[in-house]
Amino acid sequence: MTLLTPDAKGVFVISVTPFTDSGAIDFDSLDRVVDFYFEKGADGLTILGMMGEAQKLTQAESRAVAQRVIKRAGGRPIVVGVSAPGLAAIGELGKAVMDMGAAGCMVTTPGSLKTDPQIHAYFAQVAATLGQDVPIVLQDFPLSTGVHISDEVLGRIIDDVAQVVMLKHEDWPGLAKITKLRAAEAAGRRRISILCGNGGIFLPEEIARGANGAMTGFGFPEMLSDVVRLASAGDMDRAQDIFDAYLPLVRYEQQPGAGLAVRKYVLAKRGAIASAALRSPGAGLAPAAIAEVERLLTRQDNRLKELN
Amino acid sequence: MTLLTPDAKGVFVISVTPFTDSGAIDFDSLDRVVDFYFEKGADGLTILGMMGEAQKLTQAESRAVAQRVIKRAGGRPIVVGVSAPGLAAIGELGKAVMDMGAAGCMVTTPGSLKTDPQIHAYFAQVAATLGQDVPIVLQDFPLSTGVHISDEVLGRIIDDVAQVVMLKHEDWPGLAKITKLRAAEAAGRRRISILCGNGGIFLPEEIARGANGAMTGFGFPEMLSDVVRLASAGDMDRAQDIFDAYLPLVRYEQQPGAGLAVRKYVLAKRGAIASAALRSPGAGLAPAAIAEVERLLTRQDNRLKELN
Amino acid sequence: MTLLTPDAKGVFVISVTPFTDSGAIDFDSLDRVVDFYFEKGADGLTILGMMGEAQKLTQAESRAVAQRVIKRAGGRPIVVGVSAPGLAAIGELGKAVMDMGAAGCMVTTPGSLKTDPQIHAYFAQVAATLGQDVPIVLQDFPLSTGVHISDEVLGRIIDDVAQVVMLKHEDWPGLAKITKLRAAEAAGRRRISILCGNGGIFLPEEIARGANGAMTGFGFPEMLSDVVRLASAGDMDRAQDIFDAYLPLVRYEQQPGAGLAVRKYVLAKRGAIASAALRSPGAGLAPAAIAEVERLLTRQDNRLKELN
Amino acid sequence: MTLLTPDAKGVFVISVTPFTDSGAIDFDSLDRVVDFYFEKGADGLTILGMMGEAQKLTQAESRAVAQRVIKRAGGRPIVVGVSAPGLAAIGELGKAVMDMGAAGCMVTTPGSLKTDPQIHAYFAQVAATLGQDVPIVLQDFPLSTGVHISDEVLGRIIDDVAQVVMLKHEDWPGLAKITKLRAAEAAGRRRISILCGNGGIFLPEEIARGANGAMTGFGFPEMLSDVVRLASAGDMDRAQDIFDAYLPLVRYEQQPGAGLAVRKYVLAKRGAIASAALRSPGAGLAPAAIAEVERLLTRQDNRLKELN
Repeated sequence: MTLLTPDAKGVFVISVTPFTDSGAIDFDSLDRVVDFYFEKGADGLTILGMMGEAQKLTQAESRAVAQRVIKRAGGRPIVVGVSAPGLAAIGELGKAVMDMGAAGCMVTTPGSLKTDPQIHAYFAQVAATLGQDVPIVLQDFPLSTGVHISDEVLGRIIDDVAQVVMLKHEDWPGLAKITKLRAAEAAGRRRISILCGNGGIFLPEEIARGANGAMTGFGFPEMLSDVVRLASAGDMDRAQDIFDAYLPLVRYEQQPGAGLAVRKYVLAKRGAIASAALRSPGAGLAPAAIAEVERLLTRQDNRLKELN
Repeated sequence: MTLLTPDAKGVFVISVTPFTDSGAIDFDSLDRVVDFYFEKGADGLTILGMMGEAQKLTQAESRAVAQRVIKRAGGRPIVVGVSAPGLAAIGELGKAVMDMGAAGCMVTTPGSLKTDPQIHAYFAQVAATLGQDVPIVLQDFPLSTGVHISDEVLGRIIDDVAQVVMLKHEDWPGLAKITKLRAAEAAGRRRISILCGNGGIFLPEEIARGANGAMTGFGFPEMLSDVVRLASAGDMDRAQDIFDAYLPLVRYEQQPGAGLAVRKYVLAKRGAIASAALRSPGAGLAPAAIAEVERLLTRQDNRLKELN
Repeated sequence: MTLLTPDAKGVFVISVTPFTDSGAIDFDSLDRVVDFYFEKGADGLTILGMMGEAQKLTQAESRAVAQRVIKRAGGRPIVVGVSAPGLAAIGELGKAVMDMGAAGCMVTTPGSLKTDPQIHAYFAQVAATLGQDVPIVLQDFPLSTGVHISDEVLGRIIDDVAQVVMLKHEDWPGLAKITKLRAAEAAGRRRISILCGNGGIFLPEEIARGANGAMTGFGFPEMLSDVVRLASAGDMDRAQDIFDAYLPLVRYEQQPGAGLAVRKYVLAKRGAIASAALRSPGAGLAPAAIAEVERLLTRQDNRLKELN
Repeated sequence: MTLLTPDAKGVFVISVTPFTDSGAIDFDSLDRVVDFYFEKGADGLTILGMMGEAQKLTQAESRAVAQRVIKRAGGRPIVVGVSAPGLAAIGELGKAVMDMGAAGCMVTTPGSLKTDPQIHAYFAQVAATLGQDVPIVLQDFPLSTGVHISDEVLGRIIDDVAQVVMLKHEDWPGLAKITKLRAAEAAGRRRISILCGNGGIFLPEEIARGANGAMTGFGFPEMLSDVVRLASAGDMDRAQDIFDAYLPLVRYEQQPGAGLAVRKYVLAKRGAIASAALRSPGAGLAPAAIAEVERLLTRQDNRLKELN
């Protein structure tokens, strides 16, 4: 069991949770998609995030998913989303998954947080609840949570809560935030890992600004891996060539709500999961959307051939 | 086990969850406060609501609280709050408490509901998840949930979801909503029970408008019981005399967030629970607030003596 | 022309804007209600606030209202609400009313402010826009604006923006905020005036906590004046006796949205304005509400007689 | 003066408002950018929208901008954004610009609208306020307004408010909404024009779904024009080839808040406006962002050369 550190980098794919058409968790597909992500270049996985339909699972199911993925990952790092409306539930799930061998816990802000001091206090409470050995990934996702975390309060959290080792960065716009965090570190603040979300739609720029990688989902995780590797090595042109080839689909998959159905459709088509089904009340892709995705896939394929 | 019906009326007190000073659930006090509520005139109880600090409990704790209260109530109706971010968790807790003998499940709107059709669809999904025998109390509390339920969509839910037998009414302002619902019933719509919340701060007017009682908390539940009884019987003057005597404290206790600490302080002072402690991150009353409450209690006592 | 200072105290009534039944501004009634407020004990007035239906006026109308009220007030202080979506409009109206002889400008937070640094920066921008001689009343009203101003950021604004001379306090709950601000001043921070809003529903406690008065509306402004005077002089019992007599109506008038129709109904009944009409899309009181208000007025009258 | 009709189609560019570096309106640049937009293929313009920094203008400035643009447009249709917190201000500006020769008024939902019936009532009030001859563009932009307009309530507005002749569609995700609206029209509902926003990021799919064009801004309006023309003619491959070449910049320019600085930077670089300055409190592009934009422009240029 390896714990997440501020040196973490690369691609942590946000994993889907596969379901059968009747809504049961499909554990065989879960194994398969874990393998798929690592084959396509993932350095780790993040499970039970929003795009993992975590809110639709019972707590028993959440534990079963975590157990299965951690085992299948065979020692590679698994971050587990443990956000919940209350601290007790966060502590309960967090401790359970750390005992299973998770690398860390991801937590975002409940909508009840209204001011910067409340946001700051919240992460101190979460850290105390999880216990001091548990690495925390702070998910900064205002579009979904409605809570905006200023650079300033983020800095105070980093100063005061040593367990926060990573920022899952998906503020939007958020490029300047990366630059400011790195500047503050250059001026002496403790360094944390920054992995970026938002479906990767700003990934080349984010890496160039100093991010350490991606923590997001996309039907073609090899894109994330290639772009992070190339851009981190300074080969921005090649990174952006690859990125641009996938961008029409990245854009399409980034639609809030609808995007997960696209992602599962692509993963099912690629054989990584058996069914594209979302658990209710989620809906699958309508025929018009399937036609749009298929068209984009064909074009993407052609574009990638031109690139090679 | 008696199930809740659209004929339900009277006072369903929203029960606190007692904790020890160290944050553990105090089950002895839970028994005691259940007895207290019934002694003071409650017709039923509602547990695991927002003012029951439900979000701070683990699911195992939630079940233990429900089990204890239902047993202690000895057949009197217990409504259980089962709101959760996802349907699976709602179904899991809902079925568990119905098996224990709960009278019905209370559900409110998650903040993700943005339009009237989404609100309508949500209660149909909740009903299907809980199963057709489970009576549902629809909690309409926009100040807390951020979701506003129009008269119109409420009517469509009543038309289409037969399991909804009661409205926990705490829209604010909400008097006109009661009048509209009763007018629609007079014109033929299925009748449901309306019990009112908001700490009872509009209780005399609500009963006069056609509400069937109160579903709320207050440190002196005998006020709720007296006002509902008298106002329902048409004795508005006596109802309002009693109400007015308690109103300065009702007002003080209705402060969002801070109010629960007031309520627990009063209940502890009255011997209904051993400790006024809130579970973290809740805070108890500051000394200045204690002084204010004590002052109001003394005045209330004097005013009640004048009344009798 | 006297400018508002941090020493301001007493009652600044939030004035209604009277309309004829056809929706035109009724300037004769405006004169009359200004006189009425001062006769009932107001120390100053605040115009063009939310309860003055400011958003329903054209800018030309806003200027005409300000001109009329400032003239009628004959040197007594008039604060003018100048909140607008953009700085240019704030500056335009603010400068115009200061030239007319206003005592200061009241500004609240636009909903676009998401973080504490943004809130802080905003008031610096407003101050620069209005010009350094213009006293600013910072309106802190999260229930209406959706923006929550922490004690901490309020302190930073007081430190950095000298033009902020007064807090219109209507956070809810907000008693602890008064105590914290006064404690910070005792420890050396610049003192500002605190006048409280929320229809006066916590006025006795607010004065006891250190507030300097009320800035709010109520159909019986003499209550505000009496309570502020008595509570400021330490006679809390008499202050609360008077407060309690009006409290059932205060509570009823404090309903968001509906409350303004109640206030105008009472003012019209008392002869302070000719018509209770709200400008469209506002609606007047429904018959059921009129009956409720009349009942409360009769009881209030009786209670006041008992007091004297 | 030609009024907007439900048959409107093509590209209505959302115009920037050019400022000098000191924050004054640059009317010469305004003339120039109007010419630029039409030279690049615009069929009409929309002014005083959010991306036109309308909220930063005084009302006198808003009128001056409208006057200048309408005159310069020489008869081509100009839509004017007239959204304001109150109806009186909407009516005042709306009537003024219609008198100047505007083709119609664009109105969005104030954040105070909470339920579908309120949204429906609002557009009826706006229509009555503007007067029956004024064509209305309903702007549906929940990401910015916080108000979500369901297909259902949109249908009721179309049924009941004949003045609504166009939907400025920028719900996100919103492709299914176009399909539903067109299906309802096929089943008999009155047809309205649908022009799409969101910086054009879904433009090929939107046209294929039945939209009539674009109403949005982008530093290269010729892309919008080409894509609308080609996709409307069924040449989706060529439309998407052109779209894809611009997509990296479209994506970058679509960042909320930051995007306008990018757009103005590009327009200034292309000679359409003299200065890229935003009016305060807006900020220009930071050096890191300028470097990113320049890099994208170089790549875009190369890609376009390959296409031709």
